[in-house]
Amino acid sequence: MKKIAILTSGGDAPGMNPALCAIIRCAKSNGLTPYIVYEGFKGLYENNIKLTDDLDLDHVQSQGGTAIYSARFPEFKNEEVRNVAIENLMKKGIDSLIVIGGDGSYMGAQLLHEKGFKTIGIPGTIDNDIASSDYTIGYDTALNTIVDSIDKIRDTATSHKRIMIVEVMGNECGDLALYSGLATGAEIIATSDHVISIPDMANLAYELTLQEKRRSVIIIVSEKRYDLKYLEKAIEEKTKWTTRATSLAHVQRGGRPTAQERILSSLFGIKAVELILEGKSGLAIGVINNDIVGTPILEALSMVNKAKEKARVKLQKYNKLNKIL
Amino acid sequence: MKKIAILTSGGDAPGMNPALCAIIRCAKSNGLTPYIVYEGFKGLYENNIKLTDDLDLDHVQSQGGTAIYSARFPEFKNEEVRNVAIENLMKKGIDSLIVIGGDGSYMGAQLLHEKGFKTIGIPGTIDNDIASSDYTIGYDTALNTIVDSIDKIRDTATSHKRIMIVEVMGNECGDLALYSGLATGAEIIATSDHVISIPDMANLAYELTLQEKRRSVIIIVSEKRYDLKYLEKAIEEKTKWTTRATSLAHVQRGGRPTAQERILSSLFGIKAVELILEGKSGLAIGVINNDIVGTPILEALSMVNKAKEKARVKLQKYNKLNKIL
Amino acid sequence: MKKIAILTSGGDAPGMNPALCAIIRCAKSNGLTPYIVYEGFKGLYENNIKLTDDLDLDHVQSQGGTAIYSARFPEFKNEEVRNVAIENLMKKGIDSLIVIGGDGSYMGAQLLHEKGFKTIGIPGTIDNDIASSDYTIGYDTALNTIVDSIDKIRDTATSHKRIMIVEVMGNECGDLALYSGLATGAEIIATSDHVISIPDMANLAYELTLQEKRRSVIIIVSEKRYDLKYLEKAIEEKTKWTTRATSLAHVQRGGRPTAQERILSSLFGIKAVELILEGKSGLAIGVINNDIVGTPILEALSMVNKAKEKARVKLQKYNKLNKIL
Amino acid sequence: MKKIAILTSGGDAPGMNPALCAIIRCAKSNGLTPYIVYEGFKGLYENNIKLTDDLDLDHVQSQGGTAIYSARFPEFKNEEVRNVAIENLMKKGIDSLIVIGGDGSYMGAQLLHEKGFKTIGIPGTIDNDIASSDYTIGYDTALNTIVDSIDKIRDTATSHKRIMIVEVMGNECGDLALYSGLATGAEIIATSDHVISIPDMANLAYELTLQEKRRSVIIIVSEKRYDLKYLEKAIEEKTKWTTRATSLAHVQRGGRPTAQERILSSLFGIKAVELILEGKSGLAIGVINNDIVGTPILEALSMVNKAKEKARVKLQKYNKLNKIL
Repeated sequence: MKKIAILTSGGDAPGMNPALCAIIRCAKSNGLTPYIVYEGFKGLYENNIKLTDDLDLDHVQSQGGTAIYSARFPEFKNEEVRNVAIENLMKKGIDSLIVIGGDGSYMGAQLLHEKGFKTIGIPGTIDNDIASSDYTIGYDTALNTIVDSIDKIRDTATSHKRIMIVEVMGNECGDLALYSGLATGAEIIATSDHVISIPDMANLAYELTLQEKRRSVIIIVSEKRYDLKYLEKAIEEKTKWTTRATSLAHVQRGGRPTAQERILSSLFGIKAVELILEGKSGLAIGVINNDIVGTPILEALSMVNKAKEKARVKLQKYNKLNKIL
Repeated sequence: MKKIAILTSGGDAPGMNPALCAIIRCAKSNGLTPYIVYEGFKGLYENNIKLTDDLDLDHVQSQGGTAIYSARFPEFKNEEVRNVAIENLMKKGIDSLIVIGGDGSYMGAQLLHEKGFKTIGIPGTIDNDIASSDYTIGYDTALNTIVDSIDKIRDTATSHKRIMIVEVMGNECGDLALYSGLATGAEIIATSDHVISIPDMANLAYELTLQEKRRSVIIIVSEKRYDLKYLEKAIEEKTKWTTRATSLAHVQRGGRPTAQERILSSLFGIKAVELILEGKSGLAIGVINNDIVGTPILEALSMVNKAKEKARVKLQKYNKLNKIL
Repeated sequence: MKKIAILTSGGDAPGMNPALCAIIRCAKSNGLTPYIVYEGFKGLYENNIKLTDDLDLDHVQSQGGTAIYSARFPEFKNEEVRNVAIENLMKKGIDSLIVIGGDGSYMGAQLLHEKGFKTIGIPGTIDNDIASSDYTIGYDTALNTIVDSIDKIRDTATSHKRIMIVEVMGNECGDLALYSGLATGAEIIATSDHVISIPDMANLAYELTLQEKRRSVIIIVSEKRYDLKYLEKAIEEKTKWTTRATSLAHVQRGGRPTAQERILSSLFGIKAVELILEGKSGLAIGVINNDIVGTPILEALSMVNKAKEKARVKLQKYNKLNKIL
Repeated sequence: MKKIAILTSGGDAPGMNPALCAIIRCAKSNGLTPYIVYEGFKGLYENNIKLTDDLDLDHVQSQGGTAIYSARFPEFKNEEVRNVAIENLMKKGIDSLIVIGGDGSYMGAQLLHEKGFKTIGIPGTIDNDIASSDYTIGYDTALNTIVDSIDKIRDTATSHKRIMIVEVMGNECGDLALYSGLATGAEIIATSDHVISIPDMANLAYELTLQEKRRSVIIIVSEKRYDLKYLEKAIEEKTKWTTRATSLAHVQRGGRPTAQERILSSLFGIKAVELILEGKSGLAIGVINNDIVGTPILEALSMVNKAKEKARVKLQKYNKLNKIL
């Protein structure tokens, strides 16, 4: 009986767990024996590889984070380390590996594939910054968490006539900022694709405060772009409205996966098992135009532009829409 | 200045409100004056048509239901009634109408279009049963409500070693059942596309109860397919496990729209305004493979098969996956 | 080292898990060795008693249901069965037992206490129907689930001008109906303490529909009091408004415990360990006027009136308030 | 017909809206005409006082924030300003005022009372720092928001073996920190009543990291007590575990009120109307041992110690419990 292993790597993302459950169920129903590698590539190297019997799938299905853990492990760049990893897998008779993670994890997967070890990647990151998939695992849940938080912040802003700056994650990808902004009717959105200078932002906010009925302004900024304290002060000075910034920080990463998250994760997991049954390797799974597809990992890592461009076009449309709010 | 009107019709669906907000904002930013028709086609006939100034968009954006109300109005089938409706619009100088609703509402929209009144449809129904759009407004929120409810029901099932039957909405479309089942790891799913006889269902459940570690079985059925009391009894008799049925009923319809719901609704709303600016009429908006498109309403009403087929294929895949759970 | 055991019995309730976690943590920190009895009194009899090492407290802390399961076990009324149960405990060197459950479970606890086995009860039931505690474990979470559901149902009611009947749990205790009604601004509430005849209810609803701005009427009824189909019809006939009934059923029982649920459960758990350390037995823990206290179980079982009376007074106040809505 | 006015003041808190709804409904049902003062004491001075007809109570009932707004208004300390305020009320024939807010708002209420204008206070602040009430409006909702956020943060912490610091609100009152810590099983809690030096905290965290199965440490700190960046670094250096701090900031303030929030707020609102009908003034409403009572505002402002002491005792109990986790 063929044996396969599963690991999660990089930042945890809601949906990693239902993906794991789908892989385990689908593997078993197709005669494969699934193994878990705890703590990602580190666990591969340290031989932390176990059967799946202890996992309570009923509960894991709806849990946030990753039940099989993740870990930083830059040592995986060393070939000797990777050789040990492959040896550990082979000693157990495992001949295929599914890696759930982001860009960095795909690199690791590709290196194993190049060594001849069959490896399939599944895009897991809340940032939605993997070009080979329209959506990544974790994105929908993070988006909902952000929207819920901004709804709460809007309550306070409207109660007090305030400007509220909200900093969201997304790494270099503006999707979390852009789409949470669209969903909440945010008045100003600044992302890595659409940087607004601080004076420009203060002016935009100022104009909004001049509107007769307005009682709140929500400004969403992508992480690491602005000094929030400085931004607060600059906007407050220009507008004379009390201005407060909140960085949503790690609240965005965890949480129970949403319905779409679990569906997408499950379909990714099933597809990964199918590709393994077909003997495929070196592919990154993704959803493109509603189809679940596999793209060569190398290609996936270099096709950086499409998603960003789409986002940029939508942002412009949104800004056009927003002009007179 | 061009004037347009908006109405919601048929069953309320979360997302109707953010669609409305996007239309109002986008219309204003493009120099159009938006009017609201209260209570759908009934309001058209009764001339319940008003400017949008009283709506508090900041709050409406995140509310469930429809802030401009809906109503049953079979009288709209009479031509004289429709003539009065068009007259009411024209007397206010309104020359375009956006109708948010399901199949029945599309019929009304088409009849106005055929009378020469410019009308655009937006698919609003939790059932996801409109073939001209991959997703309808309301579906994502309803799906999340169902998944949350089933998670809760699973808690009790597992605590007591029980079989729980959950009846969900969807009209003739199995998507809510199918995908909530995939999301929650439900053990048995029966939809209008995949009807299971009661003895077969009892046998399936019975086999599951024989599995060593199993403590719960979740069975999802589409509405109106089974007599729940009878089904409860048949399964309990066969399996000897306590079996309880819950119909989620109207809990599924309301609730604050999810992030994706608000995003999709907003994009639909923006598209509707764009089509009106281009002078289009008789089109139903939808998302197909991530593109927001317009399909002739008549075509939309007859293209009933594609989505169902896709769902059917996925259900089979899921059942295959589920066999050995 | 002293050994204690914990079991959950009767209907599962959110909060049983954090109570369990608090007991385990507090026991260990005070030098006791905690054991788990799986499946309540049934597990006592079947010797399904284990150390707590396998429980992942970090996750159990926030899970709904009971991680150590519950089961119906009427056989516990037989003295021989109870003798076996006590023997099983004593063979492991366990000399104290904590029972989390409702009235029926308290009976079992009392019988063990009368046999000389040290037993402490913790009130666990969503129904809030245990007189020796102002609040029972599970009540706050169930109340929030009901309120969320009614909010959703209100969305649809207001959108369509409808009367919505919502049936909630509570066994013989009207608290869930009464307080969810207060929280949601429900227009009519009928509980076991305040039964309203169907014609009276139809008349009340009818009067409400005459109010000028009214677009919705929410009627909350306690479980098992009314034939919902018949009630729907009677109200619809009188009012001419579309009327729909939803029984929240098992959705109310599960779900992640709320903050107050976890706090109360934890304080109950800590108190139980303290009482055991003091050598106490035959006491039911409760919160009375913010104090965590122990009441003799026998007394707890007979002090049925106080809470109901308080609720009744509040209902009258609420009805007085509601008159002109 | 007697006329009364209502205002909200100070920081917005979930529950202010259902309190407002209960006051309006109860006032009307008792023959009083309720008026709204928009923007707190500022609105009193600026004569922003209106009838309540425009409020859509069905929706306001479940909204976060305050639908009648709040504002900073230090000018109210001037006697002339207060004279204008009272004049504005009296010109409309209003002879009683209900003020919902925190300590500062109570001051304003007391000053009006001392001028002979009948005024009643309701405690509205998420901080739970008003000694004359066991719970303040907003506290239960904020507590649940914090618990949800920490659950999410725990997901990431456990996935990655991390220490997570969470900064919560509470002004000088440790309740939000203390009880969210109890609810989430947090490992270390530092409040204004229980300050822990940074080296001590690093040592506590370090000892926890030595425990065999431990994969996460959650540290909750009250706002403004620690430099989070410095604390992060100190703990990371000592423990060698990645350590990240998140300030929940303004996410804690808004959001839909929980069930208990709405119940408590409604009961406070009803009590306020009752006191006005009895001709009372200068009283602060509160819940003490489940009774809704009125305390002279001056007394309420000075009875600062009881609640803190209770909290302190519970914290010690909790720390004792937590020692060996």
